[in-house]
Amino acid sequence: MLEALFEPKAVALVGASTKELSIGNVIIRNLQRYDYKGKIYPINPRASEVCGLKAYPALADVPGEIDLAHIIVPSPFVPQAMKECGEKGVKAVIINTAGFSEMGEEGARLQAEFLGYAREYGIRVFGPNCQGIINSDPELNAYCNFTFTFPKPGSISVVALSGGVGALIMQALDDLEIGQRLYASNGNACDVSIPEILQYYGQDEGTRAIILYTEGFDKPREFLEIARDVASRKPILAMKAGRTEQGAKAASSHTGSLAGVDIATELIFEKIGILPFRDEGEMVRAAMAFSSQPIPKGNRIGIITNTGGPAVIATDVLVDFDLEVPKLCEASIARLRETQFPEAALENPIDVVATAGGPQFRAALDVLMDDDQIDCVFMNFVTAPFTDTDEVARQIVEVSRQGRKPLVCNFMTNLKLERYRKTEAILREGGVPFYANPGDAARALGALVRYGRIRQRDIGQPEVFSGTDASRARAVIDQAREDGRAVLSAEEVYSIFEAYGIPVAPWAVTDDAAQAVAAADRIGYPVVVKVDCAAIDHKSDMGGVAVNLADGAAVRAAVEEMQARLGGHGELRFLVQKFLPGGRELIIGASAERELGHLVMFGLGGIYVEVLKDVVFKIAPVTRVEAEEMLSGIKTAALLDGVRGEAGIDKQAVIELIQRVSQLLTDLPMIQEMDLNPIMAFADRAFAVDGRIRI
Amino acid sequence: MLEALFEPKAVALVGASTKELSIGNVIIRNLQRYDYKGKIYPINPRASEVCGLKAYPALADVPGEIDLAHIIVPSPFVPQAMKECGEKGVKAVIINTAGFSEMGEEGARLQAEFLGYAREYGIRVFGPNCQGIINSDPELNAYCNFTFTFPKPGSISVVALSGGVGALIMQALDDLEIGQRLYASNGNACDVSIPEILQYYGQDEGTRAIILYTEGFDKPREFLEIARDVASRKPILAMKAGRTEQGAKAASSHTGSLAGVDIATELIFEKIGILPFRDEGEMVRAAMAFSSQPIPKGNRIGIITNTGGPAVIATDVLVDFDLEVPKLCEASIARLRETQFPEAALENPIDVVATAGGPQFRAALDVLMDDDQIDCVFMNFVTAPFTDTDEVARQIVEVSRQGRKPLVCNFMTNLKLERYRKTEAILREGGVPFYANPGDAARALGALVRYGRIRQRDIGQPEVFSGTDASRARAVIDQAREDGRAVLSAEEVYSIFEAYGIPVAPWAVTDDAAQAVAAADRIGYPVVVKVDCAAIDHKSDMGGVAVNLADGAAVRAAVEEMQARLGGHGELRFLVQKFLPGGRELIIGASAERELGHLVMFGLGGIYVEVLKDVVFKIAPVTRVEAEEMLSGIKTAALLDGVRGEAGIDKQAVIELIQRVSQLLTDLPMIQEMDLNPIMAFADRAFAVDGRIRI
Repeated sequence: MLEALFEPKAVALVGASTKELSIGNVIIRNLQRYDYKGKIYPINPRASEVCGLKAYPALADVPGEIDLAHIIVPSPFVPQAMKECGEKGVKAVIINTAGFSEMGEEGARLQAEFLGYAREYGIRVFGPNCQGIINSDPELNAYCNFTFTFPKPGSISVVALSGGVGALIMQALDDLEIGQRLYASNGNACDVSIPEILQYYGQDEGTRAIILYTEGFDKPREFLEIARDVASRKPILAMKAGRTEQGAKAASSHTGSLAGVDIATELIFEKIGILPFRDEGEMVRAAMAFSSQPIPKGNRIGIITNTGGPAVIATDVLVDFDLEVPKLCEASIARLRETQFPEAALENPIDVVATAGGPQFRAALDVLMDDDQIDCVFMNFVTAPFTDTDEVARQIVEVSRQGRKPLVCNFMTNLKLERYRKTEAILREGGVPFYANPGDAARALGALVRYGRIRQRDIGQPEVFSGTDASRARAVIDQAREDGRAVLSAEEVYSIFEAYGIPVAPWAVTDDAAQAVAAADRIGYPVVVKVDCAAIDHKSDMGGVAVNLADGAAVRAAVEEMQARLGGHGELRFLVQKFLPGGRELIIGASAERELGHLVMFGLGGIYVEVLKDVVFKIAPVTRVEAEEMLSGIKTAALLDGVRGEAGIDKQAVIELIQRVSQLLTDLPMIQEMDLNPIMAFADRAFAVDGRIRI
Repeated sequence: MLEALFEPKAVALVGASTKELSIGNVIIRNLQRYDYKGKIYPINPRASEVCGLKAYPALADVPGEIDLAHIIVPSPFVPQAMKECGEKGVKAVIINTAGFSEMGEEGARLQAEFLGYAREYGIRVFGPNCQGIINSDPELNAYCNFTFTFPKPGSISVVALSGGVGALIMQALDDLEIGQRLYASNGNACDVSIPEILQYYGQDEGTRAIILYTEGFDKPREFLEIARDVASRKPILAMKAGRTEQGAKAASSHTGSLAGVDIATELIFEKIGILPFRDEGEMVRAAMAFSSQPIPKGNRIGIITNTGGPAVIATDVLVDFDLEVPKLCEASIARLRETQFPEAALENPIDVVATAGGPQFRAALDVLMDDDQIDCVFMNFVTAPFTDTDEVARQIVEVSRQGRKPLVCNFMTNLKLERYRKTEAILREGGVPFYANPGDAARALGALVRYGRIRQRDIGQPEVFSGTDASRARAVIDQAREDGRAVLSAEEVYSIFEAYGIPVAPWAVTDDAAQAVAAADRIGYPVVVKVDCAAIDHKSDMGGVAVNLADGAAVRAAVEEMQARLGGHGELRFLVQKFLPGGRELIIGASAERELGHLVMFGLGGIYVEVLKDVVFKIAPVTRVEAEEMLSGIKTAALLDGVRGEAGIDKQAVIELIQRVSQLLTDLPMIQEMDLNPIMAFADRAFAVDGRIRI
């Protein structure tokens, strides 16, 4: 699919240059320096040679076939260059040139023009306004990029829309000597998209784990569907920047997009099992662990240390990641007692003490690898001046190579000293992930454990409730549309809820006091009366709500009072509803997200949502597992179980309610916003007592 | 004071060794390698020479004076060695040997013995079970330590009880080429203490900023008093490990201390203006900024970038630190327009674009340095292959050297390339703090800004309220002590509160129903009746509280019912108190912390403290500013201002109440625990309605 792009056997440079600091020169030198195994064809009408290679006046003059062409000429010449690519039979093009959709109307016109040629000739376009790709496969060594980092081959592949961050990640991986496989930074991404690139990485045998940097997606639903499949097969480590309002502003300024602060991207990561990061350094360091270690089966950690304080720091961080540091079993302690120095601490953390050599480290490692109560191993290894540190490193490598449980090492040393550089080389060549301080090492192991948890989580399929009546709901909405109304009336909202089996406190819509009293008699007292009028939005603030009405006289009085005071706003109707005091107020909300579908929100009503903003979001459709996570995910989840002698609420009813809301939203994508606020939840049931739908 | 320790003109090694991997050999070679300017006297009865130096059979044989001696002989020989140090007139001793108080009874006995000699001869003791000190003053070059990092001279001084973490920090500073001044790691710290070392650093002219690592303090009050003074003169960057229960357990296992999870240390940092960190790497990177940059006057940041994505990441992080990214003023934008390339973005972040060279960077820097709306500057500088990066670096250095506003640089490059190593050297030699990724750089600048905020915060002095009656309160406590009671009666608690002007809802303690009714008539209805009996702790759970009693009959019935049901628990008395419904429930608590004084806690009562754990702590005495911070520091602070149409509470009354509680605690250190729970706060006043004191 993207073979011509990522595995080109011949690369042409339309705009090859003899000037050293120009992109058209740098890319050729990068290809040469990286020892590209294919053919390089510089295209330059005024030079016979570029970087020691024969140059051709035009693509048509090139004797062989061309898989991939860089287009580096100024933007006005790009459409013509694309046409010539088509005529030559070029399969893929990287447009490094800037000045297209990111630069206003004329740029957009040029982009449309070259895209026309690309479609005509079946050319895949990468960019424009981008860096390019790298493929470290030693059979190919394709460096189609103007960056300055030359990664050694490995199993981590990187994709980033932003070239600046892509280059940064590539360099950071290289600084840690982490091998890389594929790299792609596609700038404006007018054709080849991030999801497609992920798909290619997903089926690439040399890629073990993927790093993704994004500032949001143009087509989030497409990303969700495609990345879900890739994420189920390979770890994707991802960072979404532009989390803050100011950050999003900075992002939109450099990409030309209109993205506001979006929470959808991180919700997508959560839904499909992508491991999220907020610190690019932490993400890169975690990649080192993913490139060589197995995924832990649980969160129980064994710690070996030859120094005190760093184990304390590591333990703090590991606990932050919800890792457990269990006591060792008697058998393990007995084995340690046989093999460790008398001053060693035979607990967890195991302090083998500074004088420990290879045999002590090895014995402690073997004990933890054998102990069924331990899922992964953390080590502090300071190169004490009175130890054969090479031997310690060799023992660590041997155990790591067995691949039984993930192992991460905090390796504290001075690499200015030859002696310790040798020790470091043993660890590195042995594939042990190691770090220069306990916090960094602990966070890398924490990432592995978090990912293990993600892989064990199966959100299942969305439930489809029978007996729902989508056509009735759709008819209600069609009528409102026909009337030109965006906000539905209470009667419409409740009948849609009823069509989906969403429990609503018994209700009736009435025109006057007499009807209201009759309805209240039928429903049973106490009742609440709410005015229902399109022109009155905040009915509570306007005195359009009367609660806890105990008899017909009170209902009549309330209706008449509202008629007198609010009559000027237009035709009034009156919703009469069963009054249900004493329950726990909940709220469920939904909003349509551009190109994604609906986000569903859950929280406790009142101050919990207004002051504490204590809510959880999920992307619809919401499965049972996700609905359960919503209830347990709020900070005040304990309130649902009841506190201070109160009874807890009927969680199963609320979980089902969330799923029914989700099914409703999935069937009715024209809904823009929906609120069930409040829902009153009791020990044995839960009802929506007010609702709002905007289409 | 500690001159003999930190500025020794002659060092002896009692236990010097000819074995290469022994501490008694490593320290001598370290002194030699670091080019120590003083005299080195190896003491070894069986060798005539150690490391090429003349060795002496005993200290007495050394011809010259000795300021400092390392004692490296096994622990049983240490007391004798100390005695000989005394006889020789040695002023300070570093005991590297382990096996003292951390190793049980025999070790403690040996420690007491050598300390006896030290006191007798006036020797200051550093350690035991420790590394030692380093002083990089080029006139001295003292490396009295067995570690393997050789720091270049600079202005950052480090102190860490834990040698492992101390060495780690020293190495991390050196990896970043940050110059260091003094280093100390004092292990068991039986004599020379962390506060004393801080004091020495505080008066050391070469020390510009201090890094402190701790797992808690034996004498927190002493630390607070001494470090307060140092912190007022120099930035102290500190990390407290053992934050989590498991971490604290790991700490107590390697130090032999009994520390549980303590929050006191971080509260001390807050109280006296020490900048706290939870990530050792972040702390070290921040030190780079502190070693050369001024402290910012505010939190308004200007950002210059030559690449898009990294500015987005940096902006997110800077916003996390509560920095503002203001719009630039018209004048600044106009100046930018004159100097930048047409494709540059003249906003904040200023995107000078990848092709920007020295003039563009310099112009943008000058604009931000001149703009009054900007307090500090962040730069992304990627070494684009088509730019004279050395010239860019030179311009950055020139502006940084002006020292007008703090400047931090994210410098993205490949240091494997000679060309960029040169650029890096320009930045480094120019004293520009630079980092390899935007997140790290942003956090370093964030630390500077946080510290600027700390320095601007003046908590003031604790208020002393007049009209308080300490002797009355003390008399109450003395009586309880005499009676052998640790928990005070309600009457005692309220009379102590009254002695300090702490408002209490009107109350009376009565013996029977008749007295209770009389008291209620006097106080005014409605009232609450609570049983008062030393044997009944949870009176509410036991049915010992009756609220909202509207008349005398209800009071009588309540008392008689309690007498019937609870009579078996011992003598009952009955507290009659004004019932005050409708206020906001608050809670103030206090507990005595070992060797520190009291911690005072504030929060909202009920579920806010029980479920949300939403509380703020301070160390007594609490000043007005700190009391205000307690009110604004809870997550639910908005509730104090009133929500959903409720009135806010009388915050001034609560702030005064906290201060009065603080004064009470300061006067009465024998109080172990105290609760005012709940306090009922209204729009115009606040009352304690229940209290508990344990002495």
